[in-house]
Amino acid sequence: MNTDIADLYVSRTERGSAIIARQEPVVYHQGNYAQALNEQQLERYAKDGFLVIENLFDEHEVQELLAELERLRLDPALKGMPELITEPGDQDALRSLFRVHQLSDRMAELIRDPRLVNVARQVLGSEVYVHQSRVNMKPGLYGKEFFWHSDFETWHIEDGMPNMRAVSCSLLLTDNNEHNGPLMLVPGSHRQFIACEGATPDENYKSSLKVQTVGTPDEVSLKLLIDNGGLESVRAKAGSVIFFECNTMHASSGNLSPWARSNVFTVFNSVENKLEAPRNGLAPRPEYLAARQHTDTIVPATELEPDELLMVG
Amino acid sequence: MNTDIADLYVSRTERGSAIIARQEPVVYHQGNYAQALNEQQLERYAKDGFLVIENLFDEHEVQELLAELERLRLDPALKGMPELITEPGDQDALRSLFRVHQLSDRMAELIRDPRLVNVARQVLGSEVYVHQSRVNMKPGLYGKEFFWHSDFETWHIEDGMPNMRAVSCSLLLTDNNEHNGPLMLVPGSHRQFIACEGATPDENYKSSLKVQTVGTPDEVSLKLLIDNGGLESVRAKAGSVIFFECNTMHASSGNLSPWARSNVFTVFNSVENKLEAPRNGLAPRPEYLAARQHTDTIVPATELEPDELLMVG
Repeated sequence: MNTDIADLYVSRTERGSAIIARQEPVVYHQGNYAQALNEQQLERYAKDGFLVIENLFDEHEVQELLAELERLRLDPALKGMPELITEPGDQDALRSLFRVHQLSDRMAELIRDPRLVNVARQVLGSEVYVHQSRVNMKPGLYGKEFFWHSDFETWHIEDGMPNMRAVSCSLLLTDNNEHNGPLMLVPGSHRQFIACEGATPDENYKSSLKVQTVGTPDEVSLKLLIDNGGLESVRAKAGSVIFFECNTMHASSGNLSPWARSNVFTVFNSVENKLEAPRNGLAPRPEYLAARQHTDTIVPATELEPDELLMVG
Repeated sequence: MNTDIADLYVSRTERGSAIIARQEPVVYHQGNYAQALNEQQLERYAKDGFLVIENLFDEHEVQELLAELERLRLDPALKGMPELITEPGDQDALRSLFRVHQLSDRMAELIRDPRLVNVARQVLGSEVYVHQSRVNMKPGLYGKEFFWHSDFETWHIEDGMPNMRAVSCSLLLTDNNEHNGPLMLVPGSHRQFIACEGATPDENYKSSLKVQTVGTPDEVSLKLLIDNGGLESVRAKAGSVIFFECNTMHASSGNLSPWARSNVFTVFNSVENKLEAPRNGLAPRPEYLAARQHTDTIVPATELEPDELLMVG
């Protein structure tokens, strides 16, 4: 008897689109980690699939991180590196820089910050490592949209991430308002896996990081999710952090305002959820998109007393 | 001695970009027209360059107009007509239908409605005619953005509209919220003419109605306008009307929400501001974009008492 359990989260095969109920918990009540989030925040995260904590970093820290972004943007040593993604149609406009926690000491320090990593350890109920990190700069006036997608769908199919046991943190470095293409999320969407139509082209990531066309939900499923959960755009000040579950459906509009939208984005994955082989016979993506070698457990920069970590949402 | 006055609103020539102060009034206090707008509304319009009047049309009227839109969308007689503009990249997704006041009896009735035409007569201080009319349907999920532009810049250069003495009305047929690509305007921008860079290609309108690339302001001027006036997105219910001055800088984001954004758009031009020859040696655009033949004065469908026309903003 074959004891292999079939992959429940099949996607991008001839089966076509489907809505599949999530199998895993959202909050893993395991281990004995700092209570970085209080009960109310945990409940909110479990229900909506995301949580915004305003002003988690102060103005001085934001200025310091913005200066580091500017330094990275102009660093001639980074030019031509595959980690550097430009805007569609403009080779000089930096859109994202990946693997930033290994390219910058300041960013390495940031991802060990207990305000981030202890939230990840608490919700994932285990030690964690960085699956992916990047800074995103959505320039004013010409920043392009990201269409709807679940990160987990891509990470599962293209990277072989077995389960929904990862959390993304977006630390806002600029104010996000209704005009500058803020993150839009579908509350509750993390409880459904939307299997997508269409096969994955070879080296899909080379274009999908600019404009995503595969791994996006069909119209019927997407409308159903939004009918059920509505839409929420995150309007928050620089220094705020959005924690969102790896399967939460999200998008962002183009930025027609003159105000850039920059953030540091880190994905913490559970050490119990390390990558397997990509699905559908795909070749593994580069290390800077999906860590396979560098999966060392993150030790928080400081071990604060639990009391000091209580956050007010 | 040559008594010709040089055109102040030169644009798209080798002169490059420039900010030129508006020469005309915004509200023309001439004639003796129904006081469709009260003093406060007039002041707001003069100051900001636009005015939103909520719930000017009731739910029944909106439903009736939406049904007419649906009828037009499916009308086989309209297929292939140049008045019909589709979404970039999708020949079947109707984006706009022009000259709609001549293609539909219901729309012909609408543009004679005193709630629209009497506002136009009042602010323009003269009789008016329809320079352009259209219905816009920005479909959910895939509706594309319109970049920043002043309509007057295009109408002046491509259509030879001599002066800033026209007003646009957008009657919302669906609720406009922060998620479905609402109209964004720059308050106060109507007081400056932004001369644009770049020459106009022949038959520019064939592509510009899908994606506008010429006749858009340079980044420095645009940022200056927004620094001065800020940005305002119109969030209002179906049945509301946005009146905006022909030179007000505006744009709209893509629509990633599942909610379509539809409206009826009518441009009333003063009979004292009829079109001349297009500038820069351009050929005139088709009648459905810029009326030259059909410039009959609009008589309101009913002549109500002034009291009945007072609107609360």
